[in-house]
Amino acid sequence: MNPCDIIRKKRFGKELNEKEIRAFVDGVVDGSFADYQISALLMAICINGMTDRETLALTLAMAKSGDTLDLSDVPGVKADKHSTGGVGDTTSLILVPLVACCGVKMAKMSGRGLGFTGGTLDKLESISGLSVDEDIEQFKRQVREVGCAIIGQTAELAPADKVLYALRDVTATVDCLPLVVSSILSKKLAAGCDVVVLDVKTGSGAIMDTPEKSRQLAEMMVRIGNLSGKRFSALITDMDQPLGNYIGNALEVEEAIDVLAGRVEGELKTVSLTLGAHILRNAGAVDSVEAGIALLEEKIRSGEGLKKLGEMIAAQGGNPEVVRDTGLLPKAKYKIDVTADESGYVTGMCTSDIGNAAKLLGAGREHKTDVLDLSVGIVMKVRPGDRVRRGDVLCTLHAGEKSDRVAAYNLMKRSIRIGAEKPEARPLIQAVIEG
Amino acid sequence: MNPCDIIRKKRFGKELNEKEIRAFVDGVVDGSFADYQISALLMAICINGMTDRETLALTLAMAKSGDTLDLSDVPGVKADKHSTGGVGDTTSLILVPLVACCGVKMAKMSGRGLGFTGGTLDKLESISGLSVDEDIEQFKRQVREVGCAIIGQTAELAPADKVLYALRDVTATVDCLPLVVSSILSKKLAAGCDVVVLDVKTGSGAIMDTPEKSRQLAEMMVRIGNLSGKRFSALITDMDQPLGNYIGNALEVEEAIDVLAGRVEGELKTVSLTLGAHILRNAGAVDSVEAGIALLEEKIRSGEGLKKLGEMIAAQGGNPEVVRDTGLLPKAKYKIDVTADESGYVTGMCTSDIGNAAKLLGAGREHKTDVLDLSVGIVMKVRPGDRVRRGDVLCTLHAGEKSDRVAAYNLMKRSIRIGAEKPEARPLIQAVIEG
Repeated sequence: MNPCDIIRKKRFGKELNEKEIRAFVDGVVDGSFADYQISALLMAICINGMTDRETLALTLAMAKSGDTLDLSDVPGVKADKHSTGGVGDTTSLILVPLVACCGVKMAKMSGRGLGFTGGTLDKLESISGLSVDEDIEQFKRQVREVGCAIIGQTAELAPADKVLYALRDVTATVDCLPLVVSSILSKKLAAGCDVVVLDVKTGSGAIMDTPEKSRQLAEMMVRIGNLSGKRFSALITDMDQPLGNYIGNALEVEEAIDVLAGRVEGELKTVSLTLGAHILRNAGAVDSVEAGIALLEEKIRSGEGLKKLGEMIAAQGGNPEVVRDTGLLPKAKYKIDVTADESGYVTGMCTSDIGNAAKLLGAGREHKTDVLDLSVGIVMKVRPGDRVRRGDVLCTLHAGEKSDRVAAYNLMKRSIRIGAEKPEARPLIQAVIEG
Repeated sequence: MNPCDIIRKKRFGKELNEKEIRAFVDGVVDGSFADYQISALLMAICINGMTDRETLALTLAMAKSGDTLDLSDVPGVKADKHSTGGVGDTTSLILVPLVACCGVKMAKMSGRGLGFTGGTLDKLESISGLSVDEDIEQFKRQVREVGCAIIGQTAELAPADKVLYALRDVTATVDCLPLVVSSILSKKLAAGCDVVVLDVKTGSGAIMDTPEKSRQLAEMMVRIGNLSGKRFSALITDMDQPLGNYIGNALEVEEAIDVLAGRVEGELKTVSLTLGAHILRNAGAVDSVEAGIALLEEKIRSGEGLKKLGEMIAAQGGNPEVVRDTGLLPKAKYKIDVTADESGYVTGMCTSDIGNAAKLLGAGREHKTDVLDLSVGIVMKVRPGDRVRRGDVLCTLHAGEKSDRVAAYNLMKRSIRIGAEKPEARPLIQAVIEG
């Protein structure tokens, strides 16, 4: 099949058939589609769009473009979770052990990626001794025996996505729904789970910055995911403020442990439990999301969730004592308070600036090869709607030797807005999208 | 300027400004725009279009991307002619010497390109001794002294076009008006003439296969050309049959000489004289196209045109005797008649098939490195509307040792349609587009 024929068809807004889409994805992997041909087709897709049938075919072809995990020899329902990425967003560390306590297997393979803070893998690595490098057999054994595992992507899942993403990044074709959807879902499908719950962030710290775009993305992911034969749900959650109060790597592990230990309530817990409840409901373990939340609350109260996290840590070679003593996590050298210059209400936050401040401190990667300082980050002391007085601490920077403390400090000063009027509360979970 | 910002703007259908377009063209030439970024932008242009202001800016930036010819030290008006390419289309060899006889300088720099038959350069090279390789100073001297020259592109005119065309060819972005227009015009503007006449072909043997597309192309070229400060006109001429009866390289030189010698009338002569008359009128040498045609007819009758061709050939090192004795041109080894299988009217021809048959015989290039057989080609014996009887010769193949004679024969059999009804005559010159 000639690349030009496929490109031309999409250029003139026609629907590509399965065979053409497979030829494209095969060509991306084997090099018979040149970079400049791929980017021409990506641009045509961005402008002329794709039907659901095309997006499904693209997703499936990409899912099959490399290794695919077969988890059928692990008994029970296997579930996975994906977040489009936010700040202070450590729901996985909370919901993975909790859901596993309820008998649904959580088999999570993560990439590292770039971002405000490290990914789940980086966070886990702040636990002494813990390794996220397991081969597939170890991974499956752990899921079978412990009920959950979070490891690095050892298998080459959806390699077509790697090529496509690298090109999209340099040709202004990142923010295109069918391409975002196929990129995310192809990796999830290749990872072999039966149930997937998606956390689509909306607001200043999210890829999709408007509620409409977030909703379109969530709806399309659930639609295409369900068409693929899996059970998908999505939540659209607010990212106009950090989800948790702790932002960083070790800091987020600490907050996750606090939530599992029942010491902390709030938005992070609410979103984690709601995501987990959707998994339980979609897996058939409970009848409703409400029943799921109640069951997960019970696993916190009973201490089973915290214990399960300890078991997972131990299975991956880490020191499980950390779940009882967060003092074992690496601590930053410097703590710097950022205080309010005036009295009033916290009217809003620029979450992306907060994320960038965390990155300036060394918590996130700008380039793939950047080395993180797992101890650094930010602890938020206020949330939108809080009343503050001049001089009150708004947040505390946890900084290291290499942190750009001045830049991070200035950015944080700017990112928390204070005014006279109490702002209207924004709903945390803005929508639930189900199949 | 970041390539992604420019690409994104066009992706979302916005107008690029002059600075952005110049940054793009500069980036194409210096490599700071990668191939995959160029092709993404080209696709966005294809789908979202360009305003005239953008097309003009693109044309001018491309024209300035390499050498530009300064013909100001050659006295008088300098003119050029461009054809979008057809079959049996050898108007240049006829109008260049004729126009030069009327005091308007014809300074023509041609590329070789791919096509059904060779370009004007290949045709000229079938004349013994003739060279199309002149440096700029020789070229200008010949235009000054003889009044006309047709040489190969020695200067690096519009190198951006070379890069863009190579990418368009493999990304299904060839047939896009602003890109076609800027590609053609940038080279014409870089070549430094004051007056340009365009021959836009329409029909089965043309780039633009419908009258609407041909008209849009012609109109846009004249509009953008005139905006650039030159005087442009365009004819839209029929390519649903070969223009001349002789198709090939030496064969087309022979027919051009026959026209200049006054031995042959017909479509080739009509189009050549009309194009020439537009040049004369735009150059101010005559008041009207009609007066121009009459003047050019006179230059045929007086023998001045044929003499001028001989002078041009001599100036380029060729044997000028050929204008009096076409027997000096290379002749094909084999002549094969294609005859009518039935009686009736010639109802139509597939000009592109005829062109492909000429290529199968060795008259045209499929790849840049293909070596032509300048002697081979096809001599048409009939035109649409002619009455033929079973067994009449429809055309004669002039073939060589390396010609694919069987394939060319079969293709010619198919390409000339015979039926019971006399077809309606198509107008030869379908439209004239003026500034």
